[in-house]
Amino acid sequence: MTVKNAFYAQSGGVTAVINASACGVIETARAHPDKIGKVYAGRNGIIGALTEDLIDTSQEPEENIAALRHTPSGGFGSCRYKLKSLEANRREYERLIEVFKAHDIGYFFYNGGGDSADTCYKVSQLSEKMGFPVQAIHVPKTVDNDLPITDNCPGFGSVAKYIATSTLEASFDVRSMCATSTKIFVIEVMGRHAGWIAAAGALVADQGIPVVTLFPEVEFNQESFLATVDAKVKEYGYCTVCVSEGCHWPDGRFLAEQGTRDAFGHAQLGGAAPVVANMIKDALGYKYHWAVADYLQRAARHLASKSDVEQAYALGQRAVELAIEGHNSIMPTVVRTSSNPYRWEIGHAPLSEVANVEKFMPRDFISEDGYGITDRCREYLYPLIEGEDYPPFEKGLPKYVTLKNAAVPKKLGAFEV
Amino acid sequence: MTVKNAFYAQSGGVTAVINASACGVIETARAHPDKIGKVYAGRNGIIGALTEDLIDTSQEPEENIAALRHTPSGGFGSCRYKLKSLEANRREYERLIEVFKAHDIGYFFYNGGGDSADTCYKVSQLSEKMGFPVQAIHVPKTVDNDLPITDNCPGFGSVAKYIATSTLEASFDVRSMCATSTKIFVIEVMGRHAGWIAAAGALVADQGIPVVTLFPEVEFNQESFLATVDAKVKEYGYCTVCVSEGCHWPDGRFLAEQGTRDAFGHAQLGGAAPVVANMIKDALGYKYHWAVADYLQRAARHLASKSDVEQAYALGQRAVELAIEGHNSIMPTVVRTSSNPYRWEIGHAPLSEVANVEKFMPRDFISEDGYGITDRCREYLYPLIEGEDYPPFEKGLPKYVTLKNAAVPKKLGAFEV
Repeated sequence: MTVKNAFYAQSGGVTAVINASACGVIETARAHPDKIGKVYAGRNGIIGALTEDLIDTSQEPEENIAALRHTPSGGFGSCRYKLKSLEANRREYERLIEVFKAHDIGYFFYNGGGDSADTCYKVSQLSEKMGFPVQAIHVPKTVDNDLPITDNCPGFGSVAKYIATSTLEASFDVRSMCATSTKIFVIEVMGRHAGWIAAAGALVADQGIPVVTLFPEVEFNQESFLATVDAKVKEYGYCTVCVSEGCHWPDGRFLAEQGTRDAFGHAQLGGAAPVVANMIKDALGYKYHWAVADYLQRAARHLASKSDVEQAYALGQRAVELAIEGHNSIMPTVVRTSSNPYRWEIGHAPLSEVANVEKFMPRDFISEDGYGITDRCREYLYPLIEGEDYPPFEKGLPKYVTLKNAAVPKKLGAFEV
Repeated sequence: MTVKNAFYAQSGGVTAVINASACGVIETARAHPDKIGKVYAGRNGIIGALTEDLIDTSQEPEENIAALRHTPSGGFGSCRYKLKSLEANRREYERLIEVFKAHDIGYFFYNGGGDSADTCYKVSQLSEKMGFPVQAIHVPKTVDNDLPITDNCPGFGSVAKYIATSTLEASFDVRSMCATSTKIFVIEVMGRHAGWIAAAGALVADQGIPVVTLFPEVEFNQESFLATVDAKVKEYGYCTVCVSEGCHWPDGRFLAEQGTRDAFGHAQLGGAAPVVANMIKDALGYKYHWAVADYLQRAARHLASKSDVEQAYALGQRAVELAIEGHNSIMPTVVRTSSNPYRWEIGHAPLSEVANVEKFMPRDFISEDGYGITDRCREYLYPLIEGEDYPPFEKGLPKYVTLKNAAVPKKLGAFEV
């Protein structure tokens, strides 16, 4: 087996643990110098490959690579850039192969969600045809948890832990205050199409918290929603609402797009949480507070799930091993062998079965009334938030690494993206 | 010394560590059965005293009281209820004394901010005049960090740690994405009049993050703000904005004002972040994300500052000791004896000097341009976020206590509040 270099890139929205996968890829590649030469990373994701803006990770000291395991965000930069179909933009795919060829890259590790699985798949097909075969391995990542086959997606477990914990803490807060003040707390969470993250907020019901969850999978029904909230307030004195950003009306309009106006006549500026909070205030008169967690939730490495960190690393590690074993066009997956106690192992799936398939919450994970989760869903979720994996702290703050990210000298001409 | 019962109540917005003060009060009182009988807590704060709705904390097992140390929110309930002046509503103060008399209460521990320090002060004055002297001790608490004399206020250090950490994490996230996507991240933090919490967000500048901070102490200047943000984006590729909910225009209008008011007649805030984000988008065209942390920040016991927890406990403990030593109408305070290494001890101050005094950020804590902090401010802040004090976890979530809160049988007639 000849020694080839590897290319690694991060794709799409970053997470608390995508760098743990990077760490798994790089450390494992470094352990096989007889098979893999250097690991080049794409600066800002696949854009870095197209523009030949490569990072030489071999110049990064061992401790920096190790620190990636506990550092959130994308250490090499990521991007939202979806390659078009082969027919629509063959030029980009050919450029990728050209760059790989120029830098003797035989392995392509692409760390992302559904779109990047698709890109990865196409690269493996085309490189074969172009006579410079590249082994393309997709490393799963997405807080949305919507990739098929794998039991779950790295990044999701940590967001779930953060949202469940934050919803619990804020609910305790409002419970303290509800006799004379705030009775409604609304937290908005990510998940445009799939309600996995919202489901994590629903876990707090197990601790006696009255929580109403709004999933993208369930069409919003204002009347039934308000009645459900009102009943909780009458029974408990307060109510928490966990609303997915993807929650929408029967006609498909997102709640966040509702053109409401504030007291000054200004258009209400984005956010499903303030829309829901104001709706409750207008109809039921209850005082509210609302929070929009946004990037805080997917970057919250300080509260990462231990199983999530371990899986993110293991998937990166296994991706390299699979490449060395000669595999191509596949994705390592998490396979659950037991929920209680939680046991898992790493399997793999062909990219042809992964690309362009979205996994939504199964209907039997959502309660009959549409505002909560079922025991099946609980059994699925709890293992994913299990365990803590705190980063080191210095002067009161997490000690995260910022890489040197030294550039690889270019060999080709410029390329417009 | 005769044995008297004690009354303890939580006041105003709750925090991640107010229960640690409650723990300090109750455990210390339990250690002195020769001086203090039972500790009665007000259900939902001072309202519980007025309506004779008292909680018998002696019925709470030792482990529940111990667990208060790591449980956020107000374990006995809190309220936003400010007693009027003695002249305007003598009836309420007299009722308090009547309740204290009926339940043989000789100690009044009031755990809150500026308003409750004032109430505490008046109770001590009036009870003397009414011939049933009650020793009134105020236990400081407020995330706003705006009480005078004490070096800082319990609750603040933990919020500061949470906001600094969250701002750091989200800034790493946007740094990863800024080449092709989001360039602006706006986080809105609490602090209606004082910019202490916003200052904590500014700490991330020490880690190379371009951050622009908007304080309530500095009148908002749209032109200079936009120019500052634009310069950061041009230099770093992205910019984080940490905006205090109290940030306001020169005419006093809050950026966030929604037009609703709370029980004290204060404008209800929330929504400065989307206002600022849209302003940047409109003027500079940069793609943004924004977060409103709201209750998440003050309830985030999972990321509490160790020094904050220790001080919250020590102040509750010392309040009881001061009472036993015969003090009245005072507040235990944190006295800083060294910043590096951080050393502190507990002192005390007369309530006459605490009540109705608000402590703002000193001008020399805010940088010349008004958008950052100075080294003096850094020296003040870092010790307050030092150390971690994680709660125990179970099934992936913090294990917080919900008290039994058994009622004390009533002895008096009803009272309208």
